[in-house]
Amino acid sequence: MPMTYDDFKQLGIRLDMSRGKPSAEQLDLSRALLDEAGTMGYLSRDGIDCRNYGHLLGLPEAREFGAELLGAPAAQVVAAGNSSLELMHDVLAFAMLFGVPGGEAWRKRGEIALLCPVPGYDRHFAICEALGIRMINVPMHDDGPDMDFVEAQVAADPSIKGMWCMPLYSNPSGAIYSDAVVRRLAAMPAAAADFRLLWDDAYRFHHLTPQLHTTLNVLDACEAAGHEDRALVFASLSKVTFGGGALAFLASSQRNVAWWQQRVAVRTIGPDKLNQLRHVRYLRDRAGLERLMERHRALLSPKFAAITAAFDAQLGDLPDVTWNQPAGGYFISLYTPPGVAKRTVALAAEAGLVLTPAGAAYPYGRDADDRHLRIAPTFPSLDEVRLAAQGIALSLRRALQVA
Amino acid sequence: MPMTYDDFKQLGIRLDMSRGKPSAEQLDLSRALLDEAGTMGYLSRDGIDCRNYGHLLGLPEAREFGAELLGAPAAQVVAAGNSSLELMHDVLAFAMLFGVPGGEAWRKRGEIALLCPVPGYDRHFAICEALGIRMINVPMHDDGPDMDFVEAQVAADPSIKGMWCMPLYSNPSGAIYSDAVVRRLAAMPAAAADFRLLWDDAYRFHHLTPQLHTTLNVLDACEAAGHEDRALVFASLSKVTFGGGALAFLASSQRNVAWWQQRVAVRTIGPDKLNQLRHVRYLRDRAGLERLMERHRALLSPKFAAITAAFDAQLGDLPDVTWNQPAGGYFISLYTPPGVAKRTVALAAEAGLVLTPAGAAYPYGRDADDRHLRIAPTFPSLDEVRLAAQGIALSLRRALQVA
Repeated sequence: MPMTYDDFKQLGIRLDMSRGKPSAEQLDLSRALLDEAGTMGYLSRDGIDCRNYGHLLGLPEAREFGAELLGAPAAQVVAAGNSSLELMHDVLAFAMLFGVPGGEAWRKRGEIALLCPVPGYDRHFAICEALGIRMINVPMHDDGPDMDFVEAQVAADPSIKGMWCMPLYSNPSGAIYSDAVVRRLAAMPAAAADFRLLWDDAYRFHHLTPQLHTTLNVLDACEAAGHEDRALVFASLSKVTFGGGALAFLASSQRNVAWWQQRVAVRTIGPDKLNQLRHVRYLRDRAGLERLMERHRALLSPKFAAITAAFDAQLGDLPDVTWNQPAGGYFISLYTPPGVAKRTVALAAEAGLVLTPAGAAYPYGRDADDRHLRIAPTFPSLDEVRLAAQGIALSLRRALQVA
Repeated sequence: MPMTYDDFKQLGIRLDMSRGKPSAEQLDLSRALLDEAGTMGYLSRDGIDCRNYGHLLGLPEAREFGAELLGAPAAQVVAAGNSSLELMHDVLAFAMLFGVPGGEAWRKRGEIALLCPVPGYDRHFAICEALGIRMINVPMHDDGPDMDFVEAQVAADPSIKGMWCMPLYSNPSGAIYSDAVVRRLAAMPAAAADFRLLWDDAYRFHHLTPQLHTTLNVLDACEAAGHEDRALVFASLSKVTFGGGALAFLASSQRNVAWWQQRVAVRTIGPDKLNQLRHVRYLRDRAGLERLMERHRALLSPKFAAITAAFDAQLGDLPDVTWNQPAGGYFISLYTPPGVAKRTVALAAEAGLVLTPAGAAYPYGRDADDRHLRIAPTFPSLDEVRLAAQGIALSLRRALQVA
């Protein structure tokens, strides 16, 4: 007899699937980064004493490593602290307070808006909400945002100052921006002269299949379109080595990097160069990073497969229930029939399974249709993921009142 | 025959005395923090995996360590990233954008002002200048700011939202705030209900004499005076272990810490807990930190003594030339006769000796009397410091056109 929701509840499990955190096994992959930390020294290639202050934009070899990873000149890459979210927050905070090159302080205008492809990353939306930036939902397709909608909005409305983009394995839809989409984003006319693409390349190396997808270099595309200051690219090594224990990168035009330098010179004397040095010596180069990411993939792809296999088996018969099979990234999106997502999350919680709150992937936490669930399979063990997938399916069936 | 300025210039030295950086010998004191990094593990006392995301306000034992150092409950101490300057910047940026508890966003008022004891820390002033905060100079005495002036200003002017304070071994005057001054700062009526003391306790453990000076606990004093939200205390371990490679602390009232938490929750998922763990395991406790600071003192006090001995010998005959002998901190202030400081710095530069620009210790870099020089003796070797002191003295004599 197949398991019922009540059977599942009886198991008394306690499992948190709410955040996209790496698992302990993934963190163990970079064991050498810790074990050999005592042997990595403190003098950089150029003799910089990484134990002392300075180097505002990062250790030269860390910037060069970022340049290799992001496909930008090292002079246009900043190697920063432990969080790319901080860099995104600060770009927007600085934009509000001081403006970006080519425009006045955003706070001096009345309303400011950003385009937000949905579903999207809740922490992007939280920054906008905190700063009082209006969010405009943009429909997402498998090849990126709905560009007809985006172009029409951006051309018409000077209060739209930018757009969030997660070009590869977009959180949480798994979308991969096509070359055509990237080119249109780079080239489209904008009513706001200081319009910016906030290009969060969070999953650039986080493949789940043997096909290592890439997206078009947005900095090159913007430059080719005559909008060289349009894109700010963000990335981090948190899901490569240690969550919150690695370093983050910002890459952009010379003018934007000079602007960033001017703003952060007031804020800090420089990043933790010792951790940058350790990372460069441990990962060595892009090939070293990619070898490590293959080992992440070996741990992660079975978890993602377990989720979709369980959904195939247990939700395949339900009309209007769909999910994606992402080729990379950290999330699966599960779409319920309208009006059932919140109830599913509540039922899962009653059974001991903490899911991301329904609606979290939408600005202000509001999924008007109440049908999107974000599943984060990375942190629990494979056995736990299998169990969780079953629990999610059973919670959804119970929410739908189908056996 | 004693050396002349021209003799000194002939030496062709190249020496940078412009910033308060620790020397390589000081950094070597914490060699074990690097050498043993591979053996310090990643699991906190409570089993937290420091390799993963989370713990927004810091690792519990890092917060407890900060609490022991700063004399505040651990729940009111934030253990953060690698820079206390960042914390100060962000407090003011958040205040501009959102306001602090008890007040509206500062940007919504017309003019905002902060009181700035002078001479003071140039980076404090740079933050104000960037944020468009007007700076009001406050005269300093050996026991702290001129409190009659401060009280009169703060009581009368609601645009004055706060005041920079470096209570112990103030940069660069070496002043030590007396208990009476701290109590008056805590108790004084303020026209702005959201008035804040930005309490930069940068040199709390940085003694240069056997007498380990302390200042009154400002959080307690504010609470006793009924102004428990008035003070925000900042400190860092950058000049204890590694410049820019350590961690910073923020301590304040429950309400201010809750406010901070709300603001930074949008900005980051948490600090680098691995570095926090390493620091707590290396320093152990306050006694461990104080033992280390004694070794810093053994390296630093001869350098400070060399400066003042050289000034005694070479400048003692000059009227209107004075300098302080600080009991702690990183700087010596040299006061020239009016109108000569800039010229002295230029002459020193011509002889290969880079000093902090004259006026740097004043808001907008403007020392109206052009008479203050900030000397930073920590980074060069003792021999270099001796030579530099001679060079400074000879440059000043040449600027004064005395032999």
